[in-house]
Amino acid sequence: MNVDVVVYDGFDELDGIGPYEVFDHAFAVDAADAGRVRYVTLDERETVTASHGTRVGVDGALPDPTAANAPDLLVVPGGGWRARNEEASAWAEAQRGDLPDALARYHDADVTIASVCTGSMLLAEAGVTDGRRAVTHASALDELRESGARVVDARVVDDGDLITAGGITSGIDLALYLLEREFGEPTAARVATVLEYERRGDVAGPA
Amino acid sequence: MNVDVVVYDGFDELDGIGPYEVFDHAFAVDAADAGRVRYVTLDERETVTASHGTRVGVDGALPDPTAANAPDLLVVPGGGWRARNEEASAWAEAQRGDLPDALARYHDADVTIASVCTGSMLLAEAGVTDGRRAVTHASALDELRESGARVVDARVVDDGDLITAGGITSGIDLALYLLEREFGEPTAARVATVLEYERRGDVAGPA
Repeated sequence: MNVDVVVYDGFDELDGIGPYEVFDHAFAVDAADAGRVRYVTLDERETVTASHGTRVGVDGALPDPTAANAPDLLVVPGGGWRARNEEASAWAEAQRGDLPDALARYHDADVTIASVCTGSMLLAEAGVTDGRRAVTHASALDELRESGARVVDARVVDDGDLITAGGITSGIDLALYLLEREFGEPTAARVATVLEYERRGDVAGPA
Repeated sequence: MNVDVVVYDGFDELDGIGPYEVFDHAFAVDAADAGRVRYVTLDERETVTASHGTRVGVDGALPDPTAANAPDLLVVPGGGWRARNEEASAWAEAQRGDLPDALARYHDADVTIASVCTGSMLLAEAGVTDGRRAVTHASALDELRESGARVVDARVVDDGDLITAGGITSGIDLALYLLEREFGEPTAARVATVLEYERRGDVAGPA
């Protein structure tokens, strides 16, 4: 399972880095040779600056979804949805439209997409969550509902090729759930143990 | 409260970035003008590469503990303590000795030090934990005990000017506890709510 975490200026650090570290723990040990995880940006960039100021190195540009090196799973972090006057945020990316357009192309190409926090709102902007079961950060639930998604009260919502999570730290639960779904519960449990993390909250499974 | 997170090649991403984000959430809102948080390195560096490959930008060099810009709180992440053949890890830093020496100078200057995960082992190497109540990642508890620390079974151990936490994600609980200690429970609760994080595990308070 090749995983790309698509980052942008203003993404929330833990939204993106939490799932990245969960996947890398799995790929490094249990699921060796089973995958890799990268940070990618829409356009070629050296670094992005996250919402709390962390500068994060970028591993490459997001490939075309039909390219040979396209990921099997695209992770979309949120960040700064309510910071409407910030130029670097999920909200700003939604207004610009290029990232939502890329997400729509990924969805049309049947690539599995997982969002953390207000990453779901970028998917909503892309039309990906329309009529689908989904969740987002508590502060954006009303907007997600108004966008046409079927909001589910859970920490992680599995809707098949669309998996969404609640706010910030729920990205850790999302990634552990995806390990369980793809590699089995023992892999997820082992990584949670190393992280000294107690998985919590409901996972709403496929309908 | 000025906070420096001292990073190095091989530090565990979440050990350092988790507390960084918790503090920045507080300083950005509730405790505005109450502090700032930075990533620092022992020697001037542009970036460090964390244990799972994340490249993180550095904000400056760790000041002398008596300098005007010295932090009030120094956070020490762990990373790769068992990776004995890695050149970039907490273990490698313990062998090299420069970082433990700097931590000893900070301790001698009565600066409060908080460690996450096997960051405690760097403090043990520095002699800081000798005879003190402390904890570390589960995989290093025996070594911490053998080093002369008084190991306490808790997720966070407050020993006054030395606060230690268990593995990886316990750094989030450590930072939330420090917010509670310095700014009061409502600030910690507000940040935990934004993070959608349920604080968990015991905090062993001052003896």
